[in-house]
Amino acid sequence: MNAKPTISPAKTAIRSATLLMHSPDRMGLVSSVTDFIFKNNGNILYLDQHVDAQSQVFFMRVEWDLANFSIPDDKIGEYFHVLVAERLAMTWTIHFSDEIPRMAIFVSKMPHCLHDILAHVEAGEWRVQVPLIISNHATLEHVAKRQGIPFHVIPVDKDNKAAQEQQQLALLQENKIDFIVLARYMQIVSADFIAHYANRIINIHHSFLPAFPGAKPYHSAHERGVKIIGATSHYVTADLDAGPIIEQDVARVTHKDAVEDLLRKGQDLEKVVLSRGIWSHLTRKVLVYGNRTVIFP
Amino acid sequence: MNAKPTISPAKTAIRSATLLMHSPDRMGLVSSVTDFIFKNNGNILYLDQHVDAQSQVFFMRVEWDLANFSIPDDKIGEYFHVLVAERLAMTWTIHFSDEIPRMAIFVSKMPHCLHDILAHVEAGEWRVQVPLIISNHATLEHVAKRQGIPFHVIPVDKDNKAAQEQQQLALLQENKIDFIVLARYMQIVSADFIAHYANRIINIHHSFLPAFPGAKPYHSAHERGVKIIGATSHYVTADLDAGPIIEQDVARVTHKDAVEDLLRKGQDLEKVVLSRGIWSHLTRKVLVYGNRTVIFP
Amino acid sequence: MNAKPTISPAKTAIRSATLLMHSPDRMGLVSSVTDFIFKNNGNILYLDQHVDAQSQVFFMRVEWDLANFSIPDDKIGEYFHVLVAERLAMTWTIHFSDEIPRMAIFVSKMPHCLHDILAHVEAGEWRVQVPLIISNHATLEHVAKRQGIPFHVIPVDKDNKAAQEQQQLALLQENKIDFIVLARYMQIVSADFIAHYANRIINIHHSFLPAFPGAKPYHSAHERGVKIIGATSHYVTADLDAGPIIEQDVARVTHKDAVEDLLRKGQDLEKVVLSRGIWSHLTRKVLVYGNRTVIFP
Amino acid sequence: MNAKPTISPAKTAIRSATLLMHSPDRMGLVSSVTDFIFKNNGNILYLDQHVDAQSQVFFMRVEWDLANFSIPDDKIGEYFHVLVAERLAMTWTIHFSDEIPRMAIFVSKMPHCLHDILAHVEAGEWRVQVPLIISNHATLEHVAKRQGIPFHVIPVDKDNKAAQEQQQLALLQENKIDFIVLARYMQIVSADFIAHYANRIINIHHSFLPAFPGAKPYHSAHERGVKIIGATSHYVTADLDAGPIIEQDVARVTHKDAVEDLLRKGQDLEKVVLSRGIWSHLTRKVLVYGNRTVIFP
Repeated sequence: MNAKPTISPAKTAIRSATLLMHSPDRMGLVSSVTDFIFKNNGNILYLDQHVDAQSQVFFMRVEWDLANFSIPDDKIGEYFHVLVAERLAMTWTIHFSDEIPRMAIFVSKMPHCLHDILAHVEAGEWRVQVPLIISNHATLEHVAKRQGIPFHVIPVDKDNKAAQEQQQLALLQENKIDFIVLARYMQIVSADFIAHYANRIINIHHSFLPAFPGAKPYHSAHERGVKIIGATSHYVTADLDAGPIIEQDVARVTHKDAVEDLLRKGQDLEKVVLSRGIWSHLTRKVLVYGNRTVIFP
Repeated sequence: MNAKPTISPAKTAIRSATLLMHSPDRMGLVSSVTDFIFKNNGNILYLDQHVDAQSQVFFMRVEWDLANFSIPDDKIGEYFHVLVAERLAMTWTIHFSDEIPRMAIFVSKMPHCLHDILAHVEAGEWRVQVPLIISNHATLEHVAKRQGIPFHVIPVDKDNKAAQEQQQLALLQENKIDFIVLARYMQIVSADFIAHYANRIINIHHSFLPAFPGAKPYHSAHERGVKIIGATSHYVTADLDAGPIIEQDVARVTHKDAVEDLLRKGQDLEKVVLSRGIWSHLTRKVLVYGNRTVIFP
Repeated sequence: MNAKPTISPAKTAIRSATLLMHSPDRMGLVSSVTDFIFKNNGNILYLDQHVDAQSQVFFMRVEWDLANFSIPDDKIGEYFHVLVAERLAMTWTIHFSDEIPRMAIFVSKMPHCLHDILAHVEAGEWRVQVPLIISNHATLEHVAKRQGIPFHVIPVDKDNKAAQEQQQLALLQENKIDFIVLARYMQIVSADFIAHYANRIINIHHSFLPAFPGAKPYHSAHERGVKIIGATSHYVTADLDAGPIIEQDVARVTHKDAVEDLLRKGQDLEKVVLSRGIWSHLTRKVLVYGNRTVIFP
Repeated sequence: MNAKPTISPAKTAIRSATLLMHSPDRMGLVSSVTDFIFKNNGNILYLDQHVDAQSQVFFMRVEWDLANFSIPDDKIGEYFHVLVAERLAMTWTIHFSDEIPRMAIFVSKMPHCLHDILAHVEAGEWRVQVPLIISNHATLEHVAKRQGIPFHVIPVDKDNKAAQEQQQLALLQENKIDFIVLARYMQIVSADFIAHYANRIINIHHSFLPAFPGAKPYHSAHERGVKIIGATSHYVTADLDAGPIIEQDVARVTHKDAVEDLLRKGQDLEKVVLSRGIWSHLTRKVLVYGNRTVIFP
């Protein structure tokens, strides 16, 4: 592998655009959006909408084939804004299927999530580039090196945190990073850092949140005598382990499982739950609102 | 309980209509349907669509608030057909939220699914009426009686099957039954009988189909040494245990589980999987195509 | 059904004794116990042991056929104590397969757990008697009545709690109750009451503990935006929702699920998780130590 | 990584022996075994036994601390045989915790299971050595190379199969291989080859067996419209996809999942289910009898 993964051709055959939007609920929203696409010769490939009944907010994801679409790519946003979104008070983003997002991975010493991510990338299963890996330790440098990915060791402690985060931000900007994955990165990221990548930092927490936030959740789970453990991938917010949840999964444990067994079983969960979270983000299936997510199916 | 369950008022506050439709895929389908609803002052409460890429078939479920809808209930179907469905070659059905479907339950001797269904009905969780229960044994008559539901014992064997099915059909028609639930009814229903209720007979099979069709699946599962057992609710077709699957679920088992343990664990699955299947059917979330289902989320 | 359920004969064919024990770990424990059984002509039907490595505590469950056992039932405990348990500092209990435990059920207004328990009892799946049901409301009286189980309405509020609990305790003692099931009983039971039935009161909590203890867990789960909900059956201790966990299970939810949907999906979990907890208790598969349980498989 | 993985020291602190045994059931089996260990100063760390009631076969796994054990390692087997096993007609094997089994991996073109296995090995989570990888394609050679594991390309077709299997067997014997993992190896292995490694070849099948044996199970699962897919790790027997099952797991799918989505979701299952199967085998938790397994917890 190198930083430019081969993307399997099957996935790129159709060029499509995806609109993610939300707005106050009112009549005619779906109709306005689909009418815009239809009248400009777009064939809808995917449409799902959701209305949060409590807050009366409307959410929608629509994807359409660009083959015969009559508006050029770089004008779609402008036209959609003027013709549809503005008068309906919609917040929206547009994405094209041939964009390849740039992902930075942060790690510490535990390798299982990193291995799983790189396996997906190397196999060409994900449309993504990995321009760099950042770590507070050199432990996993050899993993990055043998796959040709630049690896930056930036040790962090209480005293140098602000300065080191500046260095991290400089690297991220230089590499035009779109989003960050904390693959068992054992440092708390500052609110200031997070503000640069709001809803674009994905973390894996090794428990079924909101149970057992903070450090050593497997020890706490063992102590509490739970019969099921979990893992949670979520967007990082300034509030520790309290950001919008993207994906969770669980596994059964018994009294026979010592803390080390929970750790072992948990690692299988962590890697799978993190990779599924990244997949949802990459395929533009996630909308964040307040502290929750809409995950389009 | 009696045959007229109390429906919890929360569920009936909004009067809505639901259209289920499918057609050959083409441009403008969603737009045509949502436009029809919008222009007649309907506010969409739910919309989900799906295109089967292989067969190029379009599926859609849309539900809207009837409060200000400008077309009277009994004309909506006609208008939709003329204005939208006909020229787009759509097959469709319409349902109103204040209709209460009439469900017949068929049982034999095992009570767990019947108990679970009646518990849901009695609690007013489901919008449904149960005008009668039919059985080939008298074993469960007391359960029906104490809840005021007519119970008909119609014994079936090889020789009298055709005649007895005629009697069943007469009872079903007389009671204006909309759909039938086979709640561990241990008789094979004839193709002729099924034809009267195509995609309206829900069965629970006590295995994870297509593994272990036919009789005694728990014995087969034990013999094969599987580590997980399952249950499957599906529409009944002339092809035994091969009809469109509505819902499945599974449970872990180990070598310590004897056949009786599989039976016990399986019964918990069966009742839950059957009740979920009935719920999907009742809430108009199921579209059957070929031998598969679209289950709208 | 009445208070004397029919027990399926298959389960009673073999008369067996079950010893549950725990002690400080040391060499020769299993050997001492199995030797005692073997030398007195007992054939072991089940043996499982566990050593908690952290606390160095030994746990064991052994069950043997009494057919040719040379010690009479009423002397086994004494002999075991003198010959084995005393010098090994073992804490133990003995149970015979033909004992039928007496279970009291406490309910409030929600029927789903009660229905599920009574369905198991009525079908003769459990070796248990239900001499009475206690409730703070009359809502579910008809359910008990039609099955011939005495139903006692004992309203509880802040002011009368102590007195009403005395009345409950009197009923329980009069009916020789062995253990209590809180089947969605919406009252906090006092520490004094609990002391009378330590590790013999089973509660169902409608969340995946320790997430969302206390009231309205489904509202909290919805608010937090979790992707999985759960239910927990546990022994009641003076510390609210913090007692030893017997069983947990979970179900997937999505952003489409409103609070009412969580409630509905959760009820299926609750009834199944509570019934499994009761089953483990009835079959003498549970040992409590500290705030955790050993659940023998 | 190279062929000599670093084993985490935590796991090697205690030297232990493990006996796996089965025999016709009779009185005194557990007592005889535990007595043998106790009298020779062994402290039992793990004991689990199981009696298959149908076939009256007894199974047991016992592990004990060798620190003060009075019989030297190389004599334990002999003494156990003479003093215990022979007169009780026991079949048994003994394993020592400091043995490091030698595992060969067979792959074709799909990398996900190989990546997952090597991640576990490289992290030192498993006590195992990987002296070689064999493939019928060169596709994954770079993965082996960069981790310093010899990779042998041995193309197989109908005409050369017998000869190529001879070459494989020679390599396996030369490398003193203890067991083989087929990590999505897309060739049917001959009965003759299997006979050399009976119950020592672990395969991953990409379905929930016995549903969908043979080729293209995801296509079949999609065609059948199942709502859950699975994966199965099992020992390979001459009967295709019908060998003793070690581990299974499942994942939910919907009508929205195309065959490619099933493939993607399935790969997560496959790697996890295969790795768990290897773990059970490595930790001596598996006993095969007939076509089933006892998996000690």
